[in-house]
Amino acid sequence: MVAEIITIGTEVVMGSILNTNSFFLSQKLIELGIEVHFHTSVDDNEKRLESIIKTAISRADLIITTGGLGPTKDDMTKEIIAKALGLNIELDKTMENNIIDMFTNGNWVMTDNNQKQAFKPTGSKFIENTIGTAPGIYIEKDSKKIIMLPGPPVEMELMFEKGVINLIKDDLNIITRSINLVGIGESSLESKLNNLNLNSRNFSVLTFAKKGVVEIKIIAKGKDKNKLEEEIINRIEIIKEEFNDYIYSYDSISLEEVIIDLLNKKRWTLAVAESITGGIISSKLTKIAGASSVFNRGLITYSNTSKIEELGVKKESLNKYGPVSKETAYEMAKGLFLKSNVDIALSITGLAGPGGGTQEKPIGLVYIGIITNKFEKVFKYNFNGNRNLIQERAAVKALDEIRKLIKQ
Amino acid sequence: MVAEIITIGTEVVMGSILNTNSFFLSQKLIELGIEVHFHTSVDDNEKRLESIIKTAISRADLIITTGGLGPTKDDMTKEIIAKALGLNIELDKTMENNIIDMFTNGNWVMTDNNQKQAFKPTGSKFIENTIGTAPGIYIEKDSKKIIMLPGPPVEMELMFEKGVINLIKDDLNIITRSINLVGIGESSLESKLNNLNLNSRNFSVLTFAKKGVVEIKIIAKGKDKNKLEEEIINRIEIIKEEFNDYIYSYDSISLEEVIIDLLNKKRWTLAVAESITGGIISSKLTKIAGASSVFNRGLITYSNTSKIEELGVKKESLNKYGPVSKETAYEMAKGLFLKSNVDIALSITGLAGPGGGTQEKPIGLVYIGIITNKFEKVFKYNFNGNRNLIQERAAVKALDEIRKLIKQ
Repeated sequence: MVAEIITIGTEVVMGSILNTNSFFLSQKLIELGIEVHFHTSVDDNEKRLESIIKTAISRADLIITTGGLGPTKDDMTKEIIAKALGLNIELDKTMENNIIDMFTNGNWVMTDNNQKQAFKPTGSKFIENTIGTAPGIYIEKDSKKIIMLPGPPVEMELMFEKGVINLIKDDLNIITRSINLVGIGESSLESKLNNLNLNSRNFSVLTFAKKGVVEIKIIAKGKDKNKLEEEIINRIEIIKEEFNDYIYSYDSISLEEVIIDLLNKKRWTLAVAESITGGIISSKLTKIAGASSVFNRGLITYSNTSKIEELGVKKESLNKYGPVSKETAYEMAKGLFLKSNVDIALSITGLAGPGGGTQEKPIGLVYIGIITNKFEKVFKYNFNGNRNLIQERAAVKALDEIRKLIKQ
Repeated sequence: MVAEIITIGTEVVMGSILNTNSFFLSQKLIELGIEVHFHTSVDDNEKRLESIIKTAISRADLIITTGGLGPTKDDMTKEIIAKALGLNIELDKTMENNIIDMFTNGNWVMTDNNQKQAFKPTGSKFIENTIGTAPGIYIEKDSKKIIMLPGPPVEMELMFEKGVINLIKDDLNIITRSINLVGIGESSLESKLNNLNLNSRNFSVLTFAKKGVVEIKIIAKGKDKNKLEEEIINRIEIIKEEFNDYIYSYDSISLEEVIIDLLNKKRWTLAVAESITGGIISSKLTKIAGASSVFNRGLITYSNTSKIEELGVKKESLNKYGPVSKETAYEMAKGLFLKSNVDIALSITGLAGPGGGTQEKPIGLVYIGIITNKFEKVFKYNFNGNRNLIQERAAVKALDEIRKLIKQ
């Protein structure tokens, strides 16, 4: 099966938003063994959209569109696709009632526009959208499958996973596995990986750098699924042997999920005192369902006053060593540990810039303090990048320090 | 002039790399007054690439391709484009000598492949690549302009800025302005906007929904730049009159930047007590340089214990009304206000799910408390979406409440 991905919206071709939808959908389709030959993006123009759709129908078996399903007049994906396929558009009463219910329950004002979302091409099916107002649509006609999804990535991605995969699966096998690493740079990882000679005709081993972490992706393609899986496991074992200390998870499990999971298993609690990262560590952890049983509190002691009042950092230490120092990081962690009665207290302080750096204490200097019943330590790091990159890298490093501590 | 951007490479349509080239080029072309109607991506396949090129020639005046200019056999962009245009490929002696020099100077081993890069279609010109081995190519034929650039973004972007802009500039101006709104839904905004009749032949007024906020984008196109700017200002005034309360900024200024800026101007300080948002509000604010003078502290009181210990929330209130209640939100804000000596204390508590919702207190229920010297209030909201969307929407709503308070 050959697929084409069409992203619809003036904001895409005008460069107002980065097209992550095509990227996401390609990855998912490859994992399902579906080849993608084309990505097409077009602005919200009726004539151009129609020509794009017709071209796609002539060259692909599966067409997935994103965008243009909202309530406004710019949104005309389903109307144009119906037209291109020679289908009518009809009101779906059940969907209309769902929409009315949703607006009533939420106490929102429903406009005429919203009713538009209850219409669909004759013979098509709705794909449920549990987190937004625009449902998706599935049509099968003349052995072509057409799937329309809304543009917002969070809605589109969830709907793809929950409602689309079952509609499009076929029997060619492409298996992908990801190995996620932290604390190692991409180029150093890549040159070491090359020496392991893991690529072959059926196997590609690629590396992708993300914010502070690196992913190794193995893509295997072939007919015999069991054999592919066996050979993937062999490759993972080789990679594990070489990079074990850096590996924090496999596939789509995030560093934060690993930490919350490990803490829950050990029944350990965590408290965090953040200065430079200003809440990034806490918000990453509390985005994970299950955080509430292990995340005791986060104190964002951004000002000196709050470091003194909330954490009992000594005024003299702040004066003598400065807020960005080993001593302050230690006293932050110690104060937090004493007041919160947790198993692990983490502190972080540093200089994110812009401005404020000196030769002795440059922008990017970060201290991370960790205190437990058995363990007290302050780590010193230097990160480069702009303000937000330094904050992000410091947060990931702190999370990695917690991970290594819990794994011990 | 109408442009099409074509990105060539199996890695793009396989989802191995995110297509930032189309994004970059669209932004730059819009700035130059060139409209982009299509983005197309295709894998390294001769037949499909040829059909894509022919389609593009039929519907665009300017075609920019990236990728497929390297030395390997997968790289065939210039060969296919020459074929589509009926041109021959010829060796350029000067370029051949340049390449030989480069390899000699760099002490690199030159392979036969590298000589391939000295070939170009008859009548075309090379575009210099100062940081990579693959030069770009420019062809003008039958009043169509075709520009081929290499795929690596750093090379492509530099070559565009240095060698391409002068080739494609025309005398038509496109000016874009953005108006950013919060607290109003996209569909309600659009139906009100339509009544204002701001669109005309030279002006498009579009709306884009982002995480919790909405953008109105005005795109003006025409020869007389001064007149366009004047008419844009007129339209902004009309929009301002209608939506003034919802507008928080213009162009690329974020809601957090606006708040930090307003606080700095008034010399007001802010403290935040977050439960449901777990640090999102604090981290958004502290990502802005300049936060340190106004952001006093953030307390992420995720557990009941921490609400009691850090904020003096009464155990009886937690038992009687629950952690997600008007009373708890009020006591959180009050406790924070009393202990932190700030001008504004904000609290937020709610249910993000998954699980834990009841009919009386459904998932998505959020209370926001604000206390100042003159003002005490608790706001109640219901948000929909999954855990992370509810957290994100609640955070944006809280930021908007702060903004409205400071603006008063």
